[in-house]
Amino acid sequence: MSAFIFDLDGTLVDSVYQHVMAWHAALSACGFDLSIWRIHRRIGMSGGLMIRALARELDMPLDEATLNRLNELHAEEFERRIPTISALPGAPELLAELRELKIPYIIATSGRAKNARPMLKLLGREDEKIITREDVKRAKPDPDLFLTAAKVLHAKDVDTMVVGDSVWDMLAARRANFLGVGLLSGGYGQQELEQAGAYRVYADPEEMRRHLDELGVRAE
Amino acid sequence: MSAFIFDLDGTLVDSVYQHVMAWHAALSACGFDLSIWRIHRRIGMSGGLMIRALARELDMPLDEATLNRLNELHAEEFERRIPTISALPGAPELLAELRELKIPYIIATSGRAKNARPMLKLLGREDEKIITREDVKRAKPDPDLFLTAAKVLHAKDVDTMVVGDSVWDMLAARRANFLGVGLLSGGYGQQELEQAGAYRVYADPEEMRRHLDELGVRAE
Repeated sequence: MSAFIFDLDGTLVDSVYQHVMAWHAALSACGFDLSIWRIHRRIGMSGGLMIRALARELDMPLDEATLNRLNELHAEEFERRIPTISALPGAPELLAELRELKIPYIIATSGRAKNARPMLKLLGREDEKIITREDVKRAKPDPDLFLTAAKVLHAKDVDTMVVGDSVWDMLAARRANFLGVGLLSGGYGQQELEQAGAYRVYADPEEMRRHLDELGVRAE
Repeated sequence: MSAFIFDLDGTLVDSVYQHVMAWHAALSACGFDLSIWRIHRRIGMSGGLMIRALARELDMPLDEATLNRLNELHAEEFERRIPTISALPGAPELLAELRELKIPYIIATSGRAKNARPMLKLLGREDEKIITREDVKRAKPDPDLFLTAAKVLHAKDVDTMVVGDSVWDMLAARRANFLGVGLLSGGYGQQELEQAGAYRVYADPEEMRRHLDELGVRAE
């Protein structure tokens, strides 16, 4: 029996670009002059890991106070942009179909619970049990988030697929010995996801839903 | 002797994501509910062509009044975001180096002159002669923009390279029989640019500048 672990931002809700612009605004305010595409390519990692990676690229020192300030500014800037965010096409229907078919699934995000809750509301699943940054010591690309999610699902590794939009999802999936299913809806290219090990790549949740048979899901 | 034709947004200035979000806001306001990554992947075409393509994807009718309204809203939304835009790393230095080496170059954009001028200011080249949407009948991916640019440069096709960040730049370059040089700074993946025919792909203007010898430019 298959089981699915879903990333949230860029996979079920159309929020990646708002996160990118919120990080860009936060980083600019703190004097980190980074090209936006470089921020985009780091989204999906934990915030802390992302900032450290970006600071290293700029060869800029980073103290604890700046790190906290960046996280605060990002949270503020992101909150302002929440009204522009929608569920991705087919996302609520995909989750509904899995529930109907009794296929276990869970949402696991590198983000914090506070940021995730408004996104769940967009999916009509406000009270859904999810795994967030607070539940694990290390976020993506470490596999902890997905391993914790699989434990909650009581899923066996070989039957479990991780659905995500970023290279970090695919890499973390491989480290957890799960198959990765890539979605283009976070703005990565198809080959970037395939090179990171995606087993299949679909445009968005709607296209994935129409091809569930390719992923071993059958309406029996 | 080599000559270069440069795209502007995403190639010399870090403005692609602001254009994406401005189109998203404009399209949402007119009831076009499009995923942001799909808008991102259409940026670099002419605005009119992009809107028609997106409307077709949504299977929504599009009248002239809506088209005009969308263009107006995009212009407003983009203008609000101009203060968040910077030159891409190495862009002013790259242009300065070409001038110093007496390598002919010109900037050619699918955008309108009104939108392009503030971007030239970021490059410190406010009075630069450029080719814009108004100078040609058809914008990218048609080759007219680059052919017109080459005429102004008096450049021979085999010696001319088009530098751009989008698949549409690479496709238009091939139709004009120019080599395409892809930059990742607009947020496309490397393989997307290569598959569209890029001869070489660099991260951004700074990386291109450090590899000018690969493009036949020599400091003699």
